[in-house]
Amino acid sequence: MEFTAEQIAQFLQGRVEGDTSIKVNNVCKIEEGKQGALAFLANPKYYHYIYDTQASVVIVNEDFVLEKEVSTVLVRVKDAYSAFATLLELYNSMKNKKREGISSLSFIHKETNIEQNVYVGEFSVIEKDAYIGEDSQIYPQVFVGENVKIGKNVTIYPGVKIYHDCVIGNNCILHSGCVIGADGFGFAPLPDGSFKKIPQTGNVILEDDVEIGANTTVDRSTMGSTILKKGVKLDNLCQIAHNVSVGNNTVMAAQTGIAGSTSIGKNCFIGGQAGVVGHVNIGDGVKMAAKTGAISNVEDNTEIMGHPHLKARDYMKSFILFKKLPELEKRIRELEKQLDK
Amino acid sequence: MEFTAEQIAQFLQGRVEGDTSIKVNNVCKIEEGKQGALAFLANPKYYHYIYDTQASVVIVNEDFVLEKEVSTVLVRVKDAYSAFATLLELYNSMKNKKREGISSLSFIHKETNIEQNVYVGEFSVIEKDAYIGEDSQIYPQVFVGENVKIGKNVTIYPGVKIYHDCVIGNNCILHSGCVIGADGFGFAPLPDGSFKKIPQTGNVILEDDVEIGANTTVDRSTMGSTILKKGVKLDNLCQIAHNVSVGNNTVMAAQTGIAGSTSIGKNCFIGGQAGVVGHVNIGDGVKMAAKTGAISNVEDNTEIMGHPHLKARDYMKSFILFKKLPELEKRIRELEKQLDK
Amino acid sequence: MEFTAEQIAQFLQGRVEGDTSIKVNNVCKIEEGKQGALAFLANPKYYHYIYDTQASVVIVNEDFVLEKEVSTVLVRVKDAYSAFATLLELYNSMKNKKREGISSLSFIHKETNIEQNVYVGEFSVIEKDAYIGEDSQIYPQVFVGENVKIGKNVTIYPGVKIYHDCVIGNNCILHSGCVIGADGFGFAPLPDGSFKKIPQTGNVILEDDVEIGANTTVDRSTMGSTILKKGVKLDNLCQIAHNVSVGNNTVMAAQTGIAGSTSIGKNCFIGGQAGVVGHVNIGDGVKMAAKTGAISNVEDNTEIMGHPHLKARDYMKSFILFKKLPELEKRIRELEKQLDK
Repeated sequence: MEFTAEQIAQFLQGRVEGDTSIKVNNVCKIEEGKQGALAFLANPKYYHYIYDTQASVVIVNEDFVLEKEVSTVLVRVKDAYSAFATLLELYNSMKNKKREGISSLSFIHKETNIEQNVYVGEFSVIEKDAYIGEDSQIYPQVFVGENVKIGKNVTIYPGVKIYHDCVIGNNCILHSGCVIGADGFGFAPLPDGSFKKIPQTGNVILEDDVEIGANTTVDRSTMGSTILKKGVKLDNLCQIAHNVSVGNNTVMAAQTGIAGSTSIGKNCFIGGQAGVVGHVNIGDGVKMAAKTGAISNVEDNTEIMGHPHLKARDYMKSFILFKKLPELEKRIRELEKQLDK
Repeated sequence: MEFTAEQIAQFLQGRVEGDTSIKVNNVCKIEEGKQGALAFLANPKYYHYIYDTQASVVIVNEDFVLEKEVSTVLVRVKDAYSAFATLLELYNSMKNKKREGISSLSFIHKETNIEQNVYVGEFSVIEKDAYIGEDSQIYPQVFVGENVKIGKNVTIYPGVKIYHDCVIGNNCILHSGCVIGADGFGFAPLPDGSFKKIPQTGNVILEDDVEIGANTTVDRSTMGSTILKKGVKLDNLCQIAHNVSVGNNTVMAAQTGIAGSTSIGKNCFIGGQAGVVGHVNIGDGVKMAAKTGAISNVEDNTEIMGHPHLKARDYMKSFILFKKLPELEKRIRELEKQLDK
Repeated sequence: MEFTAEQIAQFLQGRVEGDTSIKVNNVCKIEEGKQGALAFLANPKYYHYIYDTQASVVIVNEDFVLEKEVSTVLVRVKDAYSAFATLLELYNSMKNKKREGISSLSFIHKETNIEQNVYVGEFSVIEKDAYIGEDSQIYPQVFVGENVKIGKNVTIYPGVKIYHDCVIGNNCILHSGCVIGADGFGFAPLPDGSFKKIPQTGNVILEDDVEIGANTTVDRSTMGSTILKKGVKLDNLCQIAHNVSVGNNTVMAAQTGIAGSTSIGKNCFIGGQAGVVGHVNIGDGVKMAAKTGAISNVEDNTEIMGHPHLKARDYMKSFILFKKLPELEKRIRELEKQLDK
């Protein structure tokens, strides 16, 4: 696996600036550049590294302007970040081959339906009436409960647990330790202060192209479905409660929690450790800063932050004065003194 | 499994309003009502759905007042929510039968004591001196460490890990990925800045009727026991540190964390993503809003919120003025101007 | 396992005050003291327990001053906490023997390299090209991916998952459910609002003496390594994103999250549920209060709290006035009234 700058430029439909015959055989960050390695540069914050990097080849944007000479070879492309991602994909697919075969150390109930080219690793359990679509990869120690339906080309990493009746769409990726379909947190209070469990009879549906981070939990609904729509991406350790719905291509950073029966729109960006209370509607295109606590409905395309949440701009205006509270208090005291005179 | 409105009313000791012979064969939310389905209505927020729902039968409270005619059949009961929970339980127990038998693909140490009617799934491990009470269900890929005691009628979902010496009471439910009895986080600082591990020699005790959410962690104590008392319910991804004690019927929503040696009273409601510092006492009946950071003792029956926590009412009073800080600052400026003149 | 006060004092190079021949056979907290048990006392908050404890022997600091007589026997040492930790270690090592042997119910790829005195428990998977150093303990249901390198004397508790190519140093302890090396959360936005996955081709390196809590996640880097340096201790349910670096002996309490490409210095103390945004530098010796949200670079030896973070002292000054906002507003109103006259 060795490529010339010229080959890379051709593959990416880009243009070489410098020695077209220079060769690379691995990838690196520009700030950790090494001879024989390929890097990329897209974030202006990192522009200065281009002048010192040891990387042999760097992929940059078409319109990137050099301020002085560089020793590295440039490959100019339309979108350096996206082009580099394409190369990483290629590199990754060559390095990590698709796995094949059903391990004799797995347990697969005889009444299941497993399509072609499926991999099932050691000590995984596939229960009755489960279905697994073609080209899917079930790593070791995974649990696929009764009547679970898994689409095509799905990757399920070691130790994922999927409770009965859940549905996983095509091309989904589930990382280790995530739990799909555990009981929603529903209890009816009894007069003596104890609680009666409300059975959670629904399921979880992940539509196509959903990715779920490590140790994230998505609870089954009381009735009907908890649903993550096409293209949703959840980071690690997130919590999606029962009866929640999340719209297409919404992204949540790590440790975010969405309480029961809330609906999140499409194309939202939700920062880490944010939380949304139950039974509210968050619109489309909402941006939530990290650690936001959203406590009521939020309209489309709003940026919010703080807890309880405010519009981001309003929160920052207030926060700037929060920092100056000792000074404000002094000004009030000063006024009081003057008036006393 | 098909029932008439009349049969349902009889079972629930309620009263039919409408066609007593209409039949239902599944359950649904009132807002997603379908013909042949049974729904319930208890939350006033949802009252308006009753006039359009397609559900064939809806369970409502005795004293619920219709504002106009409805096409659905009503079954009036004392407590609609609790009655519906009872029906869901029935539905659930018919759908998900208790499992039986010890899988030949599990590993059970020969020196264990397993009572009657216990299920142990594939690739579960039951170590030396463990005890499992009758009617308990151990799903696949569970780890039950040395000398663990598990009561009667306990349900342990796939992938739960229970470290040595821990005790699980009767009727407990442990969801996938929860970890009971990992080492508490205890280190003694050494002069060179490194740390010496303090062995955690105690255990965890879950009393009867405790439910633990998916991927929640409950650490073993340094000495003695970390203890969750009868009826405690923890949602997903909660953290209970070493030496903590939680009183009867206290409920914690997802992603809440309780630091070491803290004692939480009984009948508390703790919102999601809340945190309590170590070595404090939280009284009985305390209500903690989501994202609260409790930093000192809290008296019985107090409602708190914010971080650092205040009484909920005080916090909201201050927060309302936080929102108005730009306006307050303007008023101060105005006063200054006037006095300058 | 029974020792006299004299034997304990000799072992700890301490001095007995009272009956040197009194015997103990287990350990306890001073506030739960029982006859025949050994306790310790280091925290002044607990001093008053010494006068009532039933513990037979209590380890105290050399310079601890009794205010009245006690019935328990004292063993005075230089550092009571550290001395007691040493004893607990001894007690623990006698109680929990090192495990031995490779379970015939594990799966070990034939092309692996496993050194002497390694334990591998039931249903664990060791994949191709993995290396396990001597004296390491791999409990049941662990996943060690392709080309993972594990050092000497490492303890990996049930259900840990380590993705391919990761490196675990000597003496590390990994608790149940932690996930090392899952994909970092990296996506390139596409014009239609969907996302293209950025392959995560790097790995995770844990240097020597690192301890990782239950269900904590440490993501692999896009390129290069996510790295936790020597002596780092992470509590449960923490999230370390891709490309993060954490310096020697830094300690993080539960549910803390560090976003991508951030660098944390050495000897930091990070409280529970804290968060740090991506792409910033946190200096050495930084102290972060629980629930802090650090949003920019932080200099060495700074104490911070709040979200967005401020210096701890500044935050508390402002917070004290936040509590008094209703009163401040009243003072402004008062001034306005006076000026109106």
